[in-house]
Amino acid sequence: MVGIGVLGAGYWGPKHIRNFLGLADARVAMVADLVPERRASVEAQFPGVRTTDDYREVLASPEVDGVVIATPVSTHAPLAAEALAAGKHVLVEKPFARTVAECQNLIRMANDRVLMVGHTFLYNPAVRVLRDVVQGGEIGEVYHVHAQWLNLGLFQRDVNVIWDLAPHELAILMYVLGQSPTTISARGVDHVRPGLEDIAFVDLAFPSGTAASLHVSWLDPNKVRRMTFVGSRKMVVYDDVEPVEKVRLFDKGVELGLTGPAGEARVSYRVGEVVALPVPAEEPLRLECQHFVDCIAAGLRPLSDALQGLRVVEMLEATQTSLRFSGTAVPLGGAGLNGALRAPAAVFRPMTRAA
Amino acid sequence: MVGIGVLGAGYWGPKHIRNFLGLADARVAMVADLVPERRASVEAQFPGVRTTDDYREVLASPEVDGVVIATPVSTHAPLAAEALAAGKHVLVEKPFARTVAECQNLIRMANDRVLMVGHTFLYNPAVRVLRDVVQGGEIGEVYHVHAQWLNLGLFQRDVNVIWDLAPHELAILMYVLGQSPTTISARGVDHVRPGLEDIAFVDLAFPSGTAASLHVSWLDPNKVRRMTFVGSRKMVVYDDVEPVEKVRLFDKGVELGLTGPAGEARVSYRVGEVVALPVPAEEPLRLECQHFVDCIAAGLRPLSDALQGLRVVEMLEATQTSLRFSGTAVPLGGAGLNGALRAPAAVFRPMTRAA
Amino acid sequence: MVGIGVLGAGYWGPKHIRNFLGLADARVAMVADLVPERRASVEAQFPGVRTTDDYREVLASPEVDGVVIATPVSTHAPLAAEALAAGKHVLVEKPFARTVAECQNLIRMANDRVLMVGHTFLYNPAVRVLRDVVQGGEIGEVYHVHAQWLNLGLFQRDVNVIWDLAPHELAILMYVLGQSPTTISARGVDHVRPGLEDIAFVDLAFPSGTAASLHVSWLDPNKVRRMTFVGSRKMVVYDDVEPVEKVRLFDKGVELGLTGPAGEARVSYRVGEVVALPVPAEEPLRLECQHFVDCIAAGLRPLSDALQGLRVVEMLEATQTSLRFSGTAVPLGGAGLNGALRAPAAVFRPMTRAA
Amino acid sequence: MVGIGVLGAGYWGPKHIRNFLGLADARVAMVADLVPERRASVEAQFPGVRTTDDYREVLASPEVDGVVIATPVSTHAPLAAEALAAGKHVLVEKPFARTVAECQNLIRMANDRVLMVGHTFLYNPAVRVLRDVVQGGEIGEVYHVHAQWLNLGLFQRDVNVIWDLAPHELAILMYVLGQSPTTISARGVDHVRPGLEDIAFVDLAFPSGTAASLHVSWLDPNKVRRMTFVGSRKMVVYDDVEPVEKVRLFDKGVELGLTGPAGEARVSYRVGEVVALPVPAEEPLRLECQHFVDCIAAGLRPLSDALQGLRVVEMLEATQTSLRFSGTAVPLGGAGLNGALRAPAAVFRPMTRAA
Repeated sequence: MVGIGVLGAGYWGPKHIRNFLGLADARVAMVADLVPERRASVEAQFPGVRTTDDYREVLASPEVDGVVIATPVSTHAPLAAEALAAGKHVLVEKPFARTVAECQNLIRMANDRVLMVGHTFLYNPAVRVLRDVVQGGEIGEVYHVHAQWLNLGLFQRDVNVIWDLAPHELAILMYVLGQSPTTISARGVDHVRPGLEDIAFVDLAFPSGTAASLHVSWLDPNKVRRMTFVGSRKMVVYDDVEPVEKVRLFDKGVELGLTGPAGEARVSYRVGEVVALPVPAEEPLRLECQHFVDCIAAGLRPLSDALQGLRVVEMLEATQTSLRFSGTAVPLGGAGLNGALRAPAAVFRPMTRAA
Repeated sequence: MVGIGVLGAGYWGPKHIRNFLGLADARVAMVADLVPERRASVEAQFPGVRTTDDYREVLASPEVDGVVIATPVSTHAPLAAEALAAGKHVLVEKPFARTVAECQNLIRMANDRVLMVGHTFLYNPAVRVLRDVVQGGEIGEVYHVHAQWLNLGLFQRDVNVIWDLAPHELAILMYVLGQSPTTISARGVDHVRPGLEDIAFVDLAFPSGTAASLHVSWLDPNKVRRMTFVGSRKMVVYDDVEPVEKVRLFDKGVELGLTGPAGEARVSYRVGEVVALPVPAEEPLRLECQHFVDCIAAGLRPLSDALQGLRVVEMLEATQTSLRFSGTAVPLGGAGLNGALRAPAAVFRPMTRAA
Repeated sequence: MVGIGVLGAGYWGPKHIRNFLGLADARVAMVADLVPERRASVEAQFPGVRTTDDYREVLASPEVDGVVIATPVSTHAPLAAEALAAGKHVLVEKPFARTVAECQNLIRMANDRVLMVGHTFLYNPAVRVLRDVVQGGEIGEVYHVHAQWLNLGLFQRDVNVIWDLAPHELAILMYVLGQSPTTISARGVDHVRPGLEDIAFVDLAFPSGTAASLHVSWLDPNKVRRMTFVGSRKMVVYDDVEPVEKVRLFDKGVELGLTGPAGEARVSYRVGEVVALPVPAEEPLRLECQHFVDCIAAGLRPLSDALQGLRVVEMLEATQTSLRFSGTAVPLGGAGLNGALRAPAAVFRPMTRAA
Repeated sequence: MVGIGVLGAGYWGPKHIRNFLGLADARVAMVADLVPERRASVEAQFPGVRTTDDYREVLASPEVDGVVIATPVSTHAPLAAEALAAGKHVLVEKPFARTVAECQNLIRMANDRVLMVGHTFLYNPAVRVLRDVVQGGEIGEVYHVHAQWLNLGLFQRDVNVIWDLAPHELAILMYVLGQSPTTISARGVDHVRPGLEDIAFVDLAFPSGTAASLHVSWLDPNKVRRMTFVGSRKMVVYDDVEPVEKVRLFDKGVELGLTGPAGEARVSYRVGEVVALPVPAEEPLRLECQHFVDCIAAGLRPLSDALQGLRVVEMLEATQTSLRFSGTAVPLGGAGLNGALRAPAAVFRPMTRAA
């Protein structure tokens, strides 16, 4: 039985509490929040859960093995550092921290403790189906990825739309493609609050030659969560807003055929079946919570480990640079600490397969 | 603070528990279920909630003011009768009971206690918007209603697809049209389990001249929850599967104009705007739970009262007769007990307006 | 080169003219219509096509081999009879005629002439894909078919919505299932013009045990053209309004498994891939016109022959009886003239395969 | 009666022929194409239309008042120049020409002749509805426009995807916003044919402060034709692939409200109705052809005049520069010849209003 402490009971905290309470091998030992109304709400909804206004009480509790940090992003690094110093395992909400330097510091402190970042989409069954299709080679060489994460709001107070929405897309991209990008660039406009982009476009280049273009917006009338992977053989679209058919594989492609009569290259199209792949109906956050518990129990490195969190923060930092210099391409990859995480990688266990 | 006891912790029970726990003026005092695994699951998810394997313990508890009955339908009537006899207020999941006689008996027992039926869709904000449009006269005279409630499964053990799915449509129809039907007929086919219809069609006639046709199925590849109201002036479609645009008002219509040159009647069409009406994002079950608590506190008759539950059961019984006699139309309305519910009707208070 | 004459230049006539003009082995010799404006419009759009106000001129022309009858339905039988008497091959728009007796008379007159009915949907590539799936046994035993043909208008002057829209569904059903129904029943409401149903429901029983339910309406805000085939193994949906994915095969099903611990039957579900089958992009009316020309050239009996037209009219007549007697089931199949059409059946040749 | 000659009978030519034949005040005098099969096809489909393999015959014919140029883009400028020199009015398919210099030369030659470019989308009734909404101020200040024109193919032989698809978006943007952009930049990838971009992104800045981002692709599994206009008050989406609801107006917005307790700015959202605006069902190409005839008859300057064609070509040229220099922003507006077109602007007359 793994004891969980939760710091922050705003939007994400109660969701974590409910999911950890639903696991067979975890219990929620204590929840800390400064706001009395939030503590009262936690007590009402989860009558047996203890609350406090002092996070240090959580970190000091011997009943707490793992700490979930669901506080504003500027507090991630100091709180995670204190939790690690207190010997706890740590799950930090995304983005991991505000700077690469903060991330590196936390990684150095982690030692044999589990240090996990809440990239929930990696635990989304549809993303796992997507990854199997792409990594299995079914779409061939990946030419291009286009991703859109759009909605009306939610405006974050201190970060732009890239910091708010792009972490999802970046984490999925690295996970599905199995590689990290080499350069990044960003352009954006700031219409509502000067200085904070509310619509932005991010371009990435990967070592394999794959290019990716991201579109994020707080100013779109429709909620969009969609990625299109264009391959040399097939195409696959992941649409998280679709209630059922979240991953659709298109047997469509273009081939550059023999030269025509005048010596010119000829392009031919292939239009075949479209297959909606079955996706298990599991709640991603529940799988993420179970994975945190499993990694603590077995001493393993999680799927969404600190190194992945660091990579995403490195990219977010680089978009700031690119925005300042009119969209110039910024090189990536200098923030390596690969050797620092020595625990063996966990094998992720989806619930339906385990059953 | 109203104390709630829950009988049955299968599919619906835990949903009730969570929603009552989220209310400011209610607490969940005790939960009864015969199955140990279900009790253990309730204890894990809601650590402060007490469980028992003996429902009589719930009925005997002085901390319990209102009892929620979320057990199989055949047990609704006996459990509700015992709860009323113990002086408790009662909320029964739909359908209210198996026979009209059972419903009548419960209504006679209720006296000044709240006796409510869980027709959740009446607390669905989209249905309320739909009702405002229809009752406000915006679509004119209602010619016809077509409703489809389709999906793959869930097969109930002892009832056919009409008893499983039509209660939703029937409750919505009466609520939106503000009247009860005068006749009902039904036809169906039973392909998977002989004797239990898995696809069925139900026709209703209303005093105003409105006709309604329902289509329910456990054998459809898509989940459909849709009603189309065709009026003399406009048309409105309610689609509960749509994530955002659940109620759409079509400024479309047909008019029988002046006779043409050869003396014949001429039909003209009007095709104007289509308006998706804004629907507050509130959870229907939460509003239903709040309404039960409000009615207990104020001594009021709920929106989905026992009389409505009785009417729906009367219709379901009548479909059995119609199915037996090749779809013959069965008259309705003989099961009246209007005078028996003497408490004044509650005014339903949606949360967003109250805030 | 087959010469074509067209009677009637209203809605369908010009569409026939354009399609016949686009064929390599046909020419449009003459077009008859009583209305001067329509003749002028034909002359403007198709400058080389001759027009006349006297259909007898078309029937007398030696340049005309086949006659297309695209006039109001009440004139179908007399015009077709005259054309057959003049030795012409005949293509009649659907429905074939007003009564079974009229159809039988035309069949007796046809002898070795091609007598074809314009059930265009049989030449729709999507319907052909649908048929291959169903007849190939991929969905198993066909339990049930649900069909909806809905829109706002077009109201026909003298026929109800069943005569206007159901012929499409009936022709597709017989073609895809490969059998004729044994009984039919119908119910409907007439809100706009008393005595002429504008919304109707038709039920059919087939020898194989398949049941079918049709819903046709002139009073729906959305255009719907959809059929769902529920099989014992899979399900298939044909949606003609979808621009691309018109035929979708659902690997979904329900199985009645072993009895459970208490001796009860257990139902299990299977939810697998959903496959949108590729459909060639060919215009159905063009394929129909080509088929008429092919049958004339080779002396073959067309896919949508007069017998099929007769069957559909027999069903339409029977719905009139059923409507008059409160939806009673009317037996079918007494209108047989199978032996009368002695030409060998044509093999339909889709264009893309021929190319 | 205006006489029309058509140069080129490939994809667009026959569509022009059919539409001009359908007009009351135009006739198609002659069609030229070098390919015998195309001429034969024109003769079969339009029996009264004369064809030739020598375009000079068309230009010399006294029966020809206006010439439609529907040939490959590299031949636009020389053929248009010859036609103008022969005293004909000219309608050139888009893009107008390959270079700004070619466009300028044609404009100088035009004098009082009608010189029109086939930006068909300006005659699309949905685009006109969109324009009325935006220019009427209903969405407030236009913050941002996002446009996507995606599909699988059609690859053009000698131009990249920007030259193929972006002219539509650029023409619509200028028309709806009522202004020309000041800078443009472009980025793209070339996966199928090295050197010719098949996926590209184009950014534009307008004098009003509006920013626009275009996404064009020949490598997408779905056909997309969509533009989203984000305004300070409302948002409007134009989706040309939607069969009916092509223009949808969202009463949604974000407002920067009073500062909160800690002095910070507060963002609030407004989520109201979504209205699908009615769009007349008229064929854009037919309206375009009618407009050409009207302008010839009345001596007016068309809506899609040569100056608009020049502006689009200037932008396309500039994207080539930007692609070469890593997406640098290229200034626009130096290609002015405003004074050269002296005819008064025509008032566009949609057909349904005229009726």
